[in-house]
Amino acid sequence: MKIPSPSYSITLRLEIVNKIGMFGKVATAIGDVGGDIGAVDIVGVGKGVIVRDVTVNARDEAHERDIVESVKKVEGVRVLHVSDRTFLMHHGGKIEIHNKVPVRNRNDLSMVYTPGVARVCMAIHHDKEKAYRFTIKRNSVAIVTDGSAVLGLGDIGPEAAMPVMEGKAMLFKEFANIDAFPIALSTRDPEEIIKVVKYISPAFGGINLEDISAPRCFGIEERLKRELDIPVFHDDQHGTAVVILAALINAVKVVRKNIEGLKVVISGAGAAGTACCKMLAMIGIKDIIVCDRAGAIYRGRKEHMNPIKEWLSEHANPRMVKGNLSAVMTGADVFIGVSAPNLINVADIKRMSHDPIVFALANPEPEIAPEDALPHVRILATGRSDYPNQINNMLCFPGLFRGLLNSRAKDVNDEIKLAAAVAIASMVDENDLSEDYIVPSIFDRRVVTEVASRVSDAAHNTGVAGKEG
Amino acid sequence: MKIPSPSYSITLRLEIVNKIGMFGKVATAIGDVGGDIGAVDIVGVGKGVIVRDVTVNARDEAHERDIVESVKKVEGVRVLHVSDRTFLMHHGGKIEIHNKVPVRNRNDLSMVYTPGVARVCMAIHHDKEKAYRFTIKRNSVAIVTDGSAVLGLGDIGPEAAMPVMEGKAMLFKEFANIDAFPIALSTRDPEEIIKVVKYISPAFGGINLEDISAPRCFGIEERLKRELDIPVFHDDQHGTAVVILAALINAVKVVRKNIEGLKVVISGAGAAGTACCKMLAMIGIKDIIVCDRAGAIYRGRKEHMNPIKEWLSEHANPRMVKGNLSAVMTGADVFIGVSAPNLINVADIKRMSHDPIVFALANPEPEIAPEDALPHVRILATGRSDYPNQINNMLCFPGLFRGLLNSRAKDVNDEIKLAAAVAIASMVDENDLSEDYIVPSIFDRRVVTEVASRVSDAAHNTGVAGKEG
Repeated sequence: MKIPSPSYSITLRLEIVNKIGMFGKVATAIGDVGGDIGAVDIVGVGKGVIVRDVTVNARDEAHERDIVESVKKVEGVRVLHVSDRTFLMHHGGKIEIHNKVPVRNRNDLSMVYTPGVARVCMAIHHDKEKAYRFTIKRNSVAIVTDGSAVLGLGDIGPEAAMPVMEGKAMLFKEFANIDAFPIALSTRDPEEIIKVVKYISPAFGGINLEDISAPRCFGIEERLKRELDIPVFHDDQHGTAVVILAALINAVKVVRKNIEGLKVVISGAGAAGTACCKMLAMIGIKDIIVCDRAGAIYRGRKEHMNPIKEWLSEHANPRMVKGNLSAVMTGADVFIGVSAPNLINVADIKRMSHDPIVFALANPEPEIAPEDALPHVRILATGRSDYPNQINNMLCFPGLFRGLLNSRAKDVNDEIKLAAAVAIASMVDENDLSEDYIVPSIFDRRVVTEVASRVSDAAHNTGVAGKEG
Repeated sequence: MKIPSPSYSITLRLEIVNKIGMFGKVATAIGDVGGDIGAVDIVGVGKGVIVRDVTVNARDEAHERDIVESVKKVEGVRVLHVSDRTFLMHHGGKIEIHNKVPVRNRNDLSMVYTPGVARVCMAIHHDKEKAYRFTIKRNSVAIVTDGSAVLGLGDIGPEAAMPVMEGKAMLFKEFANIDAFPIALSTRDPEEIIKVVKYISPAFGGINLEDISAPRCFGIEERLKRELDIPVFHDDQHGTAVVILAALINAVKVVRKNIEGLKVVISGAGAAGTACCKMLAMIGIKDIIVCDRAGAIYRGRKEHMNPIKEWLSEHANPRMVKGNLSAVMTGADVFIGVSAPNLINVADIKRMSHDPIVFALANPEPEIAPEDALPHVRILATGRSDYPNQINNMLCFPGLFRGLLNSRAKDVNDEIKLAAAVAIASMVDENDLSEDYIVPSIFDRRVVTEVASRVSDAAHNTGVAGKEG
């Protein structure tokens, strides 16, 4: 059963008869139906009544209604108003533009705008690299989506994707002081998406592709990386892969296995699964089997293929194992699920090698319920915040882009991604490493600094850093 | 001769021997070469010396160097550092993203991002109009340019155009609390520009086209207006036309002429001139002659034509007057210059009708030097801040877009533009009207409120306002 969460949080404005014991009755009515009371504020006091705002976490929208109904039944209480905090928080959008200097008078105006601005324009016109010095390019990232693969919601379109993109922009700002702006596109055509991103690129120092469905995301990213001189990063692919690698680096230390010798099964051949396979292969893991809905992808498979799966069939699964997900898990050291809920069971885990490592990352419902898996695995990680070892892209993208912008990187190469993974892993002290602690907290602010620093170093070391790094 | 301005403002950090009378010598050295001293701050005091920051307005960059040289010659003074305030102010760009709510912990995160955000996404997915309630679309404007006709600088490209676009975004924020973001495009192809703007439109409540050269700007705007359901406004055309009309409405009150009976000559058949002609015709002025470099545009003219000039030849100049600018000014009541410096002279003005109205708006150098024109005109307006009657788009676009966003307008029609002009004109009290005061100050904050209100009313009255106005 789901537990109450702030995602379904309501504030009830209640007029309560001002008598001792009345609030207790309200609290009981909420508790009786499983509501979790948070802040309680007094709004005002009237004739014989007191008005309070009571914030309550619920399980879902039906549960919100149950709570309101339960409170309504308490004698001496009137429900004046019910507001949903999540919707309230989205009112009018979550980000805004802020001027770094005020424009209060003609003097200000003549410097930030005409006529003074003309000199700055001409300085950039004569040396385009100066855009990094005198415009927002120095610190700006475009969050580009077509709304085709948003969270677990799927293809909901660019307008409906915007709250996620604005949320992502907030994380960029809050964690890395990066000015990210959402570009939500009303086209699905890869060629058109590539063109738009190229055309809008002069204002941006980096491109974060987000929630674009596979397999289109692969070609779009590949072309943009080749044709643009600013870094392009599809977070759903590489952000996930980087954090998985960071977690795996630490997990093998706990179980004392050699990372290159691991047998790995990946469930999911979409953006994340493919990038994860490439990244693990890049650091030297040989035995990786990627499964999609049709089972293991192997050389010569004919059904349900696409160019990326062809690539996977050539570059992974060297033993050419066939069969469904359950079958190929036999003997595996590591299971990485970036697919769908409830695809594996306890029997599958029992057939894995000793000290099994299971990353069940489908969100919000993992490939196996954590309660079922925990007694049978050595290490479990999920995408959820209510279990240990949360694998979350937030560990990567803020610091990664901070490092890319700091070094004015022109590309994101394998060395940079590896540097980010190593940086994340390094934030768990060797002495603290345990089955329940293989990745740092997403709120550990040191992670951003460390990732940024190592990414910037890697950009310089591999020759992709810009001038005046 | 140009006067010193903050556009060319430098701050000199000077180490001065700490003796009475020394600062007087520094001030004299600056004054001797015509520098205008502003703020003077003490930075610190050392052994027998005092370090001061002295801010000085200069005429231009050569003058800045003269001032520095003059100060260097003063015995007992060392110039430690010279910084250009305009460039300093542009360092790292002038705008940034700001989060409306903090993301400090898991509770915040679960509301502004996953999992809570999913509910908001689905609400918009089920009713796209809710994008206006729960995303930045409610308050966002894209400032779109291709950098082809920037200020008086011309075709300097998208990177070099960015400081102007960021400056414009600042004005949107400062004057109308609108969140505008610069979209600087690396393409000149009208079809491509149209496509990009359509593709990025889901995140925006309005489109401000900026500094796109004529005649491409006409077709781009026309197509976008037809194909998008958010307002599209090319400021160089209509912003200028609206403010010119506002000024003309008040000017005719001063000279006591009937606006519809005016004979008007417009110099310039680019974006501003064309839009101005259309707007003046729209309010009923019949006798308008538009001139380009080849002289009056008339029906049947063969040379130097394009589709817009063809349109002008059909819809303006009913008397089919031919000849150069100087010739066609004979008998005119109004001259409107949106063209180039020094195109007319005193003799031309003397041949105009009685009480001539001259709007010489080429910037920074008008069609005639204000000192030359003033003795011979009844009313003079320029684009400059150092003479009375400054015709500036800032009087229009912040309030216009505020009104469009407030009413969720789907289009900017003639009635809306007229409402904006009338609103601007109305901000000069009838009792205060005079030859030197026909438009309000660009820093009069009441203008934005009044324009917004009348624009919103006009949107409702003409049926282009959105739901939930």
